Amino acid sequence: MSERFECIELPELTLHSGKVLGACGPVRIACSINGVPKPDGSNVVVICHALTGSHHVTGDPVLGLPEAWWEPVVRPGGVLDPEKLCIVCCNNLCSPYGSSAPTDMEPGTDRPWGMRFPVIAPRDAARSQKMALEALGIRHVAGVVGGSLGGMIALEWMAEFPDIVDFCVAVAAPSRLYPQAIAFNGVQRHSILSDPEWKGGDYFPGRGPVNGLYNARMLAMITYRSEESFVRCHMRSARNNIDDWDGRFEVESYLMHHGEQLIKRFDANCYLYLTKLMDLHDIGRGRGDAEAAFEPFRKKPFLAVGINSDILFPAWQVEELAEAARDAGVHSVYREMKSDVGHDAFLVDFGQMSDILGDFFDSIGFGR
Amino acid sequence: MSERFECIELPELTLHSGKVLGACGPVRIACSINGVPKPDGSNVVVICHALTGSHHVTGDPVLGLPEAWWEPVVRPGGVLDPEKLCIVCCNNLCSPYGSSAPTDMEPGTDRPWGMRFPVIAPRDAARSQKMALEALGIRHVAGVVGGSLGGMIALEWMAEFPDIVDFCVAVAAPSRLYPQAIAFNGVQRHSILSDPEWKGGDYFPGRGPVNGLYNARMLAMITYRSEESFVRCHMRSARNNIDDWDGRFEVESYLMHHGEQLIKRFDANCYLYLTKLMDLHDIGRGRGDAEAAFEPFRKKPFLAVGINSDILFPAWQVEELAEAARDAGVHSVYREMKSDVGHDAFLVDFGQMSDILGDFFDSIGFGR
Repeated sequence: MSERFECIELPELTLHSGKVLGACGPVRIACSINGVPKPDGSNVVVICHALTGSHHVTGDPVLGLPEAWWEPVVRPGGVLDPEKLCIVCCNNLCSPYGSSAPTDMEPGTDRPWGMRFPVIAPRDAARSQKMALEALGIRHVAGVVGGSLGGMIALEWMAEFPDIVDFCVAVAAPSRLYPQAIAFNGVQRHSILSDPEWKGGDYFPGRGPVNGLYNARMLAMITYRSEESFVRCHMRSARNNIDDWDGRFEVESYLMHHGEQLIKRFDANCYLYLTKLMDLHDIGRGRGDAEAAFEPFRKKPFLAVGINSDILFPAWQVEELAEAARDAGVHSVYREMKSDVGHDAFLVDFGQMSDILGDFFDSIGFGR
Repeated sequence: MSERFECIELPELTLHSGKVLGACGPVRIACSINGVPKPDGSNVVVICHALTGSHHVTGDPVLGLPEAWWEPVVRPGGVLDPEKLCIVCCNNLCSPYGSSAPTDMEPGTDRPWGMRFPVIAPRDAARSQKMALEALGIRHVAGVVGGSLGGMIALEWMAEFPDIVDFCVAVAAPSRLYPQAIAFNGVQRHSILSDPEWKGGDYFPGRGPVNGLYNARMLAMITYRSEESFVRCHMRSARNNIDDWDGRFEVESYLMHHGEQLIKRFDANCYLYLTKLMDLHDIGRGRGDAEAAFEPFRKKPFLAVGINSDILFPAWQVEELAEAARDAGVHSVYREMKSDVGHDAFLVDFGQMSDILGDFFDSIGFGR
């Protein structure tokens, strides 16, 4: 059974900020479905994707979408097996892969929304996904699982809709964005905002501030890796003569390669909105604190997975998240991936990721 | 006795790359002198400044130079006391504060050198400084001391001229640049190179790619601080409404402030050359390895000072440097500053810096 795609149209969505998305037309949520949902939703797992990912999680390449990001996890025989479970992944709002985004045309004009699109918070993203699942006839889910920005959205699913979610898994995500991560996002945004091709966001999609986006991605890639992985893969290897300007260390070429790849498939305004969305991540906001956000999930199972080499969301931040859940009376488990890859280990070391998820599912008697 | 400034003119300098600097005119080295050198140089300490610093180390503000960077260390009664010692600091080649740099006019043209200036390596910088001291009549020094990029140049002083240096101190500097630091430098350079105002380096000095330099500085400031210091100073504090684009987290404003300050006082091409110089730091290059670089310094005292919260040159890299020295038979001491400030702690926590230097000087019977 292969991945199916749907594009759900929702009526307007009132945002956490009080603004309304979709006042001039429906809100679109693109999603993928792997497997068949049981009527009671007891085999449905929502998975939430990361910053520049999409809802294409497994299977053959799909035109216009980036490579499937969790293929070995979501496949027959995998820890999330579509022959038994139904795995639903929604494209995040503000992402350029089909859901409503700043790249959409503003009704009644001949230009995209650009910076007139409202700022979206993680809980808005979670709410839009829950509404999309309702439109698919799914009113209860077994669990939500996400990594990085996807983990933050999974946490908002848990906190906003504790009654319709039975378990939650957050990988490489903190309870709130700490200032160093905000700082890295800020520099990335600034490199887009200061690109003269950005033009206040009113560039024509597909062109625009590609240099700024390229720079942003180069920096982001440093935070997705680790010194150890750079030492292992590149150390001080160089091409050409490093004493000249045409010489370049391989680690720099590696970052440039990732910059080049991203500008072919991503939009700069979407990048601004999604890093802003990430900055706004704070499950305690408006709820008291992180512990209070977990309270409605009391006695339900929660798994937090840190990565020992993560410099973007260090393991201590994920462990702190697990402690907040435990203090709230949640059945909270903390596990740590041992990898030198850094933040992206959950997208690279599928074996360890699957083992940790599998142990957790076994412990709660889910699925397998 | 106040700081005196000199500008030394050197004949041409053959670089490590084989190229020649100064074939069309003298090489300039701007320097500061605090105190009076003894004829045998036994009270002379050379101190080496960091990336965007200058040779103005202590005393009142000097027009055109950034704030004195080691005032509490270099002053009467300080651990480097100009009433007893003679402290000399040379402006690094490629820096815009008086030594030869890409901002100089190319002879016979009406434009600055820009990218036609040769690439300078740390050992070229050390050699130019040694020649400048000779021109001042100083042929032997008690020691060389430097922090960050200055530490790298101090290490090259030690490795190139072991016979005329009695002790060496490197603060927050590794034996060679590791790939994550190269990566951070690479992203910073790329933000300058991709600024359309850069124009291949042929902008008029004082204007040029200020946005690119601003972005570079924002990123650099993250690497000079630490998550702990950002948590202590900013956490998630914000100005205005963070749900809107005019709202901003304070940590982002802090980085922008530093970007704004640097573009008022620094040049983008100089920044390119100095980060390249830093990338080339590798005391083992052409000498076998780091241990071999230390061998001519056998039995002499060496102090390596790491900073526990440094994310740019983590303490383990500085400790590794101290071990290479020890393995070579150098009297090597490793000390660690305990601070949450990050890399810049040696420019902030003067008390701890002075204590560590003072202990080292006491242990070798120097000066005080």
